[in-house]
Amino acid sequence: MRFLSETESAALITEEMAFAAARDALIAATDAQTFPVVLGHGSEPGNRFTVKSAASDRLAGVKVGSFWPGNEAKGMPRHNSIILLFDQETGRIAATIEAGTVNAFRTAAADAVAADVLARRDATTLAIFGTGNQALYECVAVSKVRALETVHVVARSADRGERFVELLSQKGLKGQLSTAHDACRQADIIVTATTARAPLFESDWVRPGTHVASMGSDARGKQELPPELLANARLFCDLPSQSAEIGEMQHVADRTRLTALGDVLTGKAEGRLADDDITVFDSSGIALQDLYVAEALLNAR
Amino acid sequence: MRFLSETESAALITEEMAFAAARDALIAATDAQTFPVVLGHGSEPGNRFTVKSAASDRLAGVKVGSFWPGNEAKGMPRHNSIILLFDQETGRIAATIEAGTVNAFRTAAADAVAADVLARRDATTLAIFGTGNQALYECVAVSKVRALETVHVVARSADRGERFVELLSQKGLKGQLSTAHDACRQADIIVTATTARAPLFESDWVRPGTHVASMGSDARGKQELPPELLANARLFCDLPSQSAEIGEMQHVADRTRLTALGDVLTGKAEGRLADDDITVFDSSGIALQDLYVAEALLNAR
Repeated sequence: MRFLSETESAALITEEMAFAAARDALIAATDAQTFPVVLGHGSEPGNRFTVKSAASDRLAGVKVGSFWPGNEAKGMPRHNSIILLFDQETGRIAATIEAGTVNAFRTAAADAVAADVLARRDATTLAIFGTGNQALYECVAVSKVRALETVHVVARSADRGERFVELLSQKGLKGQLSTAHDACRQADIIVTATTARAPLFESDWVRPGTHVASMGSDARGKQELPPELLANARLFCDLPSQSAEIGEMQHVADRTRLTALGDVLTGKAEGRLADDDITVFDSSGIALQDLYVAEALLNAR
Repeated sequence: MRFLSETESAALITEEMAFAAARDALIAATDAQTFPVVLGHGSEPGNRFTVKSAASDRLAGVKVGSFWPGNEAKGMPRHNSIILLFDQETGRIAATIEAGTVNAFRTAAADAVAADVLARRDATTLAIFGTGNQALYECVAVSKVRALETVHVVARSADRGERFVELLSQKGLKGQLSTAHDACRQADIIVTATTARAPLFESDWVRPGTHVASMGSDARGKQELPPELLANARLFCDLPSQSAEIGEMQHVADRTRLTALGDVLTGKAEGRLADDDITVFDSSGIALQDLYVAEALLNAR
């Protein structure tokens, strides 16, 4: 069995690799099997993990992602991941990849792929909800597909917000603290990367032509976006069945309104039709993204 | 991350270690969280895998088990397994253990634990349905808890049956080929280790006082035992919720009749009440068994 440690995989991953893998995975997802997600926990029920698995025509495997909230106080990432790829000749696990940092790249990359195909070409202003580790990866990934001039940072605490603006600056991005209202009123792209269980802003704050990405909703009961926005926007997601089950689209009654991003990428479905469309992409996070990025890492090693 | 290869784990595992781990796991299961089982497959849908996960008050982790039927023609085991144990302080995977051989020991050990507590003390005759790799482990494991004099082997092909009798002989067990009828009529213990989707024998062939273990039923649609037997026997299983979902007990309408073996082991529930009781144990295979055996392997290393 090949093994890539956290240190090795973190050294190998790049935005470009994650973007290409996410794009390939989103296309493959429209014609692949994604198996039900397990929502588990550790001996301490507040420590949670998910198990996601999938098979495309080429790759099959399993990703275990964990969220240990107490890690933050120890100065450690709350999220960790490990990816198992099957050797499809034998059914044995051919490779095990520790992928905590990789997971942050791959998650942001899916939103970047969506922004690339759905956001207006002239988008320059990003609003980011959330100031966690993932939020920073989201801003950097979106900045690779649109020439961002300003990132409006909506933070629950000013301290965390200021620290986040400083982190953005280290990545060459110009951030500023904003209220939810002001951020939405000026944004061309809105990304939510929170653990919210209620809408983070109001629908009528969002301007026509905005692209909105919900990254945080990954379990029943999670909610980041106002229902009125979902009612009136064009809706896209990584995997309709999963997004409607555990993603933001659980708050959309009519599942036939959901378009798989992979179908837009291949031209089977239409994306943005007009400059004043509001587009929403929900990233529930699919195992195929992990499998494709795992393969890319093994090839890059 | 600690890693035990297939070679290492196979060298460490013993019947005694597997028995103790299975017993501890069955007891822990009555008070633990077992998460839903994923039934997945590889790019080729005939290549199947399961993902099982659980958390007890002490251990949490995931087991991926695969069944690649084409391996047999290549002289390789069809079943493979890998176990991931969480570091509960951090949520990272602390240990990854290749456990193909270990899985055969742990599965047989659960049936041995059940036979030890449910079969008559004077049981000397075993009927085994199935001549696969797992069936041999089952016979050896049962022989550790009861003084077996004869093993009646029910085989679909005489060739395979004869080879199996030879393998039993190498393990110090006296086997003979029998028809399903003759095997049941003489057995004190019946173990089914097949992939059957219909009953393997008739209910009235089973003598009063027999203990029956169904090992093979691990998915919807699988069935090894006659419904009439289940209707009249005392019913035990590793985990009622899982056994009624994917195990043999999916064919029992009244789930309140199912007793968790762990409750018998701790004295909370009664096992065999009389010498002429027919007892049935269904082993659906629970993740806790894997976690406990993984811990034992790590301690033994």
